[in-house]
Amino acid sequence: MSSTDTPGSVTATEAVRAAYARIIAADRPEVWIELRPEAEVGAEAAEVDRLLRAGADLPLAGLLFAAKGNIDIQGMVTTAACPAYGEVAETDATAVARLRAAGAVCLGATNLDQFATGLVGTRSPYGAVRHAFRPEYISGGSSSGSAVAVALGLVDFALGTDTAGSGRVPAAFHGLVGIKPTRGLVSTAGVVPACRSLDCVTVLAGDLDLAESVAGVLAGFDPRDPQSRVAPGEASAEANSGAGAGAASGSGTGARIGIPRPGQLGELAPGWAEAFDAVVGRLRTGGADLVEIDIEPFLRTARMLYDGAFVAERYAAVGAFVDAHPDEVDPVVGAIVAGARDVPAHRLFSDLEALDTERAVSRQVFTTIDALLLPTTVEHPTLAEVAAEPLAVNSRLGRFTNFANLLDLAAIAVPGGMVGQTHFGVQLVGPAFTDARLAGLARRILADDEAERPAPVPAEAERPAARGEAEPQEIVLAVAG
Amino acid sequence: MSSTDTPGSVTATEAVRAAYARIIAADRPEVWIELRPEAEVGAEAAEVDRLLRAGADLPLAGLLFAAKGNIDIQGMVTTAACPAYGEVAETDATAVARLRAAGAVCLGATNLDQFATGLVGTRSPYGAVRHAFRPEYISGGSSSGSAVAVALGLVDFALGTDTAGSGRVPAAFHGLVGIKPTRGLVSTAGVVPACRSLDCVTVLAGDLDLAESVAGVLAGFDPRDPQSRVAPGEASAEANSGAGAGAASGSGTGARIGIPRPGQLGELAPGWAEAFDAVVGRLRTGGADLVEIDIEPFLRTARMLYDGAFVAERYAAVGAFVDAHPDEVDPVVGAIVAGARDVPAHRLFSDLEALDTERAVSRQVFTTIDALLLPTTVEHPTLAEVAAEPLAVNSRLGRFTNFANLLDLAAIAVPGGMVGQTHFGVQLVGPAFTDARLAGLARRILADDEAERPAPVPAEAERPAARGEAEPQEIVLAVAG
Repeated sequence: MSSTDTPGSVTATEAVRAAYARIIAADRPEVWIELRPEAEVGAEAAEVDRLLRAGADLPLAGLLFAAKGNIDIQGMVTTAACPAYGEVAETDATAVARLRAAGAVCLGATNLDQFATGLVGTRSPYGAVRHAFRPEYISGGSSSGSAVAVALGLVDFALGTDTAGSGRVPAAFHGLVGIKPTRGLVSTAGVVPACRSLDCVTVLAGDLDLAESVAGVLAGFDPRDPQSRVAPGEASAEANSGAGAGAASGSGTGARIGIPRPGQLGELAPGWAEAFDAVVGRLRTGGADLVEIDIEPFLRTARMLYDGAFVAERYAAVGAFVDAHPDEVDPVVGAIVAGARDVPAHRLFSDLEALDTERAVSRQVFTTIDALLLPTTVEHPTLAEVAAEPLAVNSRLGRFTNFANLLDLAAIAVPGGMVGQTHFGVQLVGPAFTDARLAGLARRILADDEAERPAPVPAEAERPAARGEAEPQEIVLAVAG
Repeated sequence: MSSTDTPGSVTATEAVRAAYARIIAADRPEVWIELRPEAEVGAEAAEVDRLLRAGADLPLAGLLFAAKGNIDIQGMVTTAACPAYGEVAETDATAVARLRAAGAVCLGATNLDQFATGLVGTRSPYGAVRHAFRPEYISGGSSSGSAVAVALGLVDFALGTDTAGSGRVPAAFHGLVGIKPTRGLVSTAGVVPACRSLDCVTVLAGDLDLAESVAGVLAGFDPRDPQSRVAPGEASAEANSGAGAGAASGSGTGARIGIPRPGQLGELAPGWAEAFDAVVGRLRTGGADLVEIDIEPFLRTARMLYDGAFVAERYAAVGAFVDAHPDEVDPVVGAIVAGARDVPAHRLFSDLEALDTERAVSRQVFTTIDALLLPTTVEHPTLAEVAAEPLAVNSRLGRFTNFANLLDLAAIAVPGGMVGQTHFGVQLVGPAFTDARLAGLARRILADDEAERPAPVPAEAERPAARGEAEPQEIVLAVAG
C-alpha cells in the first residue's frame, strides 16, 4: 500500500498516476471537496522524486495523502464543508507543511461534517459521504472523506481532526487505524476550529506502522499554535505528577489494560459486545493484565460535551458566521451552533469545575492501568437511520469517544475484527503523552488479530468465569457468520 | 518574632498569652471576623507544648497564625465576610489542617473584602480594615485582616488567598513577604471560591524564611482538591516543555531578571518609580543580569481579569446566593458578581483563546529570564480615595498582580524599601513551579536591602546610562526624606 514498503520500487510520480486512476475508477465524488489537478500534483511528485535521487532524507517520500477540508492547504479554499465560509489558504496548516516537508504529496481536501460538527459524515452540502464498501451505511465523521479515501486506497493516509471522536469513529467503521494524539502534540495552526481548546489533528491509515510514522512527522512544537506543547521527556507529565507511576512500558505482556465493569458498555450493535470480549480475551491470553474499571466517570464526561456549556465553544468559533448566513449552513449543524449562543459563562465555569473533578478521577484511574480499552463506537448506522434521528444517533456514536479530549487523554483506534459485514473497532485511551505506549499496546491487539494465539496460556483457574471462556477467534467468526 | 528563632525559649502557651495581650492592646477589632477564646487556644497551645516535650517533630511548633475568613477553620463559621453566607466548617481547610499538624496554633478568622472580591480591604460588613500603622490608609485586600494581624505582630504569620493579587497587595502595603504559590501547589479544599480555577492560598509573614517554612508545610497533593498538583521533580513543568531552559538557579549572581521597558510601568505614586529603579540597581550591582522585557502582554492579561468574561467565575461561585440575598451583600461586591450573570459562554471561550495566546507569549518570555521583577502595586490609597471611586482605585491596584494566576505563574511579594511613610513593595514572578527559585531571588533583594553593597561593582562602562546612575540606597533615602 505504501511506497515506503518497497523503497525505490514505485516513484512518487507513478504513485500519483495510479492514484488518480483509482480515484476515477472509484467514482466517489462526495469524498472530495476539492481534488487537485493531476498535473499539478504530478509536478510536485516529480520534484520529490528528484530530491530523493539527489539523496534527500524524506521519511514520507512519495506517500500520498488527503487533508480533511477544515485544514489549510496552501492555495486551496478551506471550506470546512461550508462553501460560503471558505477562504483561500495563504499557507499550509502546520500539519500539512510538515508532511510535505517530509516528502508526502497532498492530493486535496476531503469532505466532512460541516465545521467538524458531527460523527456521521452526512452533514455536508458536498453530499453525505457513504461508507467505502457499504454505500447504504454512513462513513462516520466528521473526518468522513478522509476515512473513505484511505479505505478505498485512493491515498496512503489522510489527515482528520478529532474533537469528540471525529478521527476515531470513521476509522472504526472502515477497519482503519486512527491516531488521536495528545492535545497540542500536533499543531492545529491552520485548522478551522470546532471546539478550539479540544481540537486535535489526527491520522487515518490502513496500518499502524504507517500511522505512527506520520504521527511522528506531525508532532512537534509550533509557535503558530498557542496550545502547542511537547512531551516532557520520555516520561509523561501525568506520570511525573503522580499518575501512571509504575506503569508497565506497554509492550503487551504485563501491561495493565482497563476494561469496563460488566454491563457498563451499554447497548451495542448485535455481536459487538462479544467482539469486544474477544479482543479482551486475546489480550489476556497474550499476557496482559486486565483490570475492571468503573468507566462511569468517563461516560459522564462524554455526556458533558454536548449536554453542557462546552458546545458554546463552537459558537465562539463560527457563531457569528452562522448567525449571518443561516441559509448557507447545514440545518443540523446550524441548530447546534446557534443553540449555544445564549449559554451563560457562569454555567460554563460550573461545567469546568465538574470537569476538573472528573479529570482528577481519571488521573487516579490511570495510576492503576496503562491504558483503557473500549469499543470505539456503539453501532454502524445506515444513512436512513441518521436521517431519521440525526441528533440521537450522533450522540450515541460518541459515547466512548467524547471524553478523551475533555480529559486530556491520548487515544488510538484500531480494528477489532469483523462482526458480520461491519468493522468492529476498539480504542486504547491513556493519559496525555502516552501516545507511544498506546501504539505499542495497539500493535499487540493487531498482532493477536492475525497471529496464532501466543503462549503462555493462563491456567484455567486463573481465568475469570465471566469472560474469555470460549475461543475468542471463534466468537468473532461465529458472529461474523 | 517567631518562636522557632529561639527554640525552647518561649512555650506555645506563653506565646498565646502574649498574643492575646497584644490583640487587646492593639484595639483593632476590624482585623478579626472571629477571634477564638483565649482559653480554647491556650489549651491547644498546651497540647503542642506537651507534644514537643514528648519529642514530637513539629516544624511550626508554637507559631501563631490567623486564617483569612474565607478559609475553613473547624467549628467556626466561614463567612467570607458575608454573615448570611456563613456556615460552620465541619473540618479544617486542608491548608489549616496541615499547619495545625505541624504544630502551629490558629487564633481565628480574619476580615477580608467580601468573597475575596477586592484589593482594598474596605468591602466588608465587619468594617473597613485600616492600615496597621496609618489608619487613614487602606490595608489592601482582600487578605486585609491577615496582613494587619501580621504587621501588628498579633500572629507570627497568616493565611490569605490570592486570585488577582489579594495576597500580595496587602503584603506590599505593610512591608511583608507574601508568597503566592504556583496554583494547585497548596490545596484550596475548604476555601470559599472567588474564581475557583484561579484561587491560591497564600502566606503572609514578616520574614522570608518563616514564609518559606510555612509554604513548605502547606504544599502537597490533596485528593480533596481536584486542581491539586505537585511540582514535577526538581525541574519545572514549564522548563521541561521548553520554557526556562538554561535558566540560572536563581542564587542571585548571574540570575536573569526581567524588568519592564522604560515607560511601561505607567503612573505610579510619587517616588515609587525611583524606588523600583533602586531595587533594580541593587540587583544589578549584586551581579544579576537585568533584561528589559516588553510587559505589555502581562498588562493586557491583567486587564482581561475584570474587563472580560472571567468575572463570571465569581457568579458561578456565589451568584445564586447574591441573587437571593441582595440586601446582605456588600453593594460593590454584589454589583460585580451580579453584573457577570449574563456574560455569554462563547465570550468566555473567546477570552480563553486570547489567554492561550498570552500564555504562549509568557512562556516565551520566561525562556529568556529567570523571573520578572515588578512593583507589587501602583500606589497606596486612603480609605477616602477608595470610597470616592471604589472600582477605579481597585482596578489600578491590580495592574501588576491580576495576570499571575491567569498565566499560571508563581509570585512572591517582598518589601522594596520605604518611600516617605509608605511601604514600597516589589514582586518576583516566574513560571509554575519556580517557587523556590523566586524565593532565592527574593532573598537576594532583601539581603541587598540591608547589607552593604557587595562586590563586584560593574565597571562604569558596563552600566547602562538610563538606570542605576545614582547610588540606589541614596535614592530610596532621598525619596523617603
